[in-house]
Amino acid sequence: MSCANHDHECLGWAATDPSGIVSPYKFNRRAVGSDDVSITITHCGICYADVVWTRNKHGDSKYPVVPGHEIVGVVKSVGSGVSRFKVGDHVGVGTYVNSCRDCHFCNQGLENNCQKGSVYTFNHVDADATITKGGYSSFIVVHQRYCFKIPDNYPLASAAPLLCAGITVYAPMVRHKMNQQPGKSFGVIGLGGLGHMAVKFGKAFGLNVTVFSTSISKKEEALTLLGADKFVLSSDQEQMKGLANSFDFIIDTASGDHPFDPYMALLKTYGVFVLVGFPSEIKLSPVNLNLGDKTLCGSTVGGTREIQEMLDFCAAKGIQPNIEVIPIQYANEALERLIKEMSNIGL
Amino acid sequence: MSCANHDHECLGWAATDPSGIVSPYKFNRRAVGSDDVSITITHCGICYADVVWTRNKHGDSKYPVVPGHEIVGVVKSVGSGVSRFKVGDHVGVGTYVNSCRDCHFCNQGLENNCQKGSVYTFNHVDADATITKGGYSSFIVVHQRYCFKIPDNYPLASAAPLLCAGITVYAPMVRHKMNQQPGKSFGVIGLGGLGHMAVKFGKAFGLNVTVFSTSISKKEEALTLLGADKFVLSSDQEQMKGLANSFDFIIDTASGDHPFDPYMALLKTYGVFVLVGFPSEIKLSPVNLNLGDKTLCGSTVGGTREIQEMLDFCAAKGIQPNIEVIPIQYANEALERLIKEMSNIGL
Repeated sequence: MSCANHDHECLGWAATDPSGIVSPYKFNRRAVGSDDVSITITHCGICYADVVWTRNKHGDSKYPVVPGHEIVGVVKSVGSGVSRFKVGDHVGVGTYVNSCRDCHFCNQGLENNCQKGSVYTFNHVDADATITKGGYSSFIVVHQRYCFKIPDNYPLASAAPLLCAGITVYAPMVRHKMNQQPGKSFGVIGLGGLGHMAVKFGKAFGLNVTVFSTSISKKEEALTLLGADKFVLSSDQEQMKGLANSFDFIIDTASGDHPFDPYMALLKTYGVFVLVGFPSEIKLSPVNLNLGDKTLCGSTVGGTREIQEMLDFCAAKGIQPNIEVIPIQYANEALERLIKEMSNIGL
Repeated sequence: MSCANHDHECLGWAATDPSGIVSPYKFNRRAVGSDDVSITITHCGICYADVVWTRNKHGDSKYPVVPGHEIVGVVKSVGSGVSRFKVGDHVGVGTYVNSCRDCHFCNQGLENNCQKGSVYTFNHVDADATITKGGYSSFIVVHQRYCFKIPDNYPLASAAPLLCAGITVYAPMVRHKMNQQPGKSFGVIGLGGLGHMAVKFGKAFGLNVTVFSTSISKKEEALTLLGADKFVLSSDQEQMKGLANSFDFIIDTASGDHPFDPYMALLKTYGVFVLVGFPSEIKLSPVNLNLGDKTLCGSTVGGTREIQEMLDFCAAKGIQPNIEVIPIQYANEALERLIKEMSNIGL
């Protein structure tokens, strides 16, 4: 999505009630502080989080909600203390725009797990008590720490989804050293925004990638477009059984409810299952966890260090998400389509 | 338990039907092969596995079942190829007596995860097609690889429970490096055979140990006898909430059904929850796994390398399980007591 830029006020698109319909909404951003970067937003990814908070699905929406946390653009001004960025740089902002900057985790560049809680990019109370407003807007002002350099050769529009969907799968993959074990077997459950990036990273890491989906319509995309090594329809019990005890890693990007035991049974001894989706519950048999000393772990986005590393990796390897660029005026239809697609593919 | 020893035949105690009642039963052990050790059994621990297979709880009991897989005794003879043991040595045998000795895991001393499957000490088909018979018997013949040296200063009777209960908690604790992080917070759920050893290891590793139990009657044992730092009645919701986000590690030794979310919520960011019990299912909210990038993992016993290391560690540190020595003639009453105690404490 692209937004027009105005000099003194920000033009956003906001939902004002749980209908979730976004419409033009003018508001002021804070003045650029010494460590701040002001960014003309050129593109913002559409994420399911936008649906969650524009429609008050968690009951904590603070209207008007200006959604969007996959933000890219061009630096239009910087504060006096900013040395990492200069006017004209291509930059991105992800799912959080503040943290305590002083805790054990912030000090390791893991601000996503800030002990005092990171401040989300929209619908969250910032340190100055204002409600954060996201990337469905003309510009944003953010502390340089939460701003990322997008390599010059990387298309801005393609960088946007990396800042949430990309890092959500990249961070746990690297944390579990999947980037250091080429040839190992890697399963990806679900082929939406997160899953398709997991396939791309998996292939770039040299893993043997199998896509599991409830929808046969994803087969062509998985094998041809994304280059997965294998596609398995998860309802095919015969094929699922034949794969028992054969995966080193599985990443589960499905947010719809689904059984865990059939996938846990596919893990090898000491295998690792990473959950990044949010189904309503996790349910499995201890037999599928204890026998073979398996690991089930969760993850959410990543720290600033990991995000910059991922952006540089994507540029170096030519990894780009599959995207569709639309004008901001089409946002409501796009959000509707997202809701439909996610229910269709069981995400 | 102690058994009489006879020269040419083994006197065991076997269950012959699902009543699970054990009674004297004579059978022959194999001749001592070149790599075998023959052991006069002095003591054998009573484990819930004995109840499971004497009573056919998994539907796979091969009667007559001679239970017992926490075996200690004195070497009475060795094969020509045995150099690690000599007549008179104090030794132990744990939950498995054979494995392929050739796979990736066997080669690392992780025979419990042998890719072809380890052979359990009783009620299992051995490589020679015989059904294994356990430690409720006068002697046992076992390949030296599955035989462990019990340090000279360590009481034989006390060594027995280490070979299943002890290693079941020791192995995952060491695998998660809990022995290298003194001062970290460690929760132990359940205070039976496994749980009380987890407390002892936790204290020996310098951890800050909290015991969680459904039974207030365990408080005295936890704090005074075992030296835990804190006791929490798991039904005390107020106290449980106050401990949110405060544990680096939790080990769950409860086999009875119980909720997981209240404990997962106690883990810190990147905290690790180790399940060693076998409740009928694991059920939790993804929120309690994903937020804070937490890990839930399972484990069963340990490899031969880990078992010997644990025995040496226990001897060096003077760690002994709390035991009660009974004659074999009392085995049926003891099994009944075990069933009652486990249901009482929710294990």
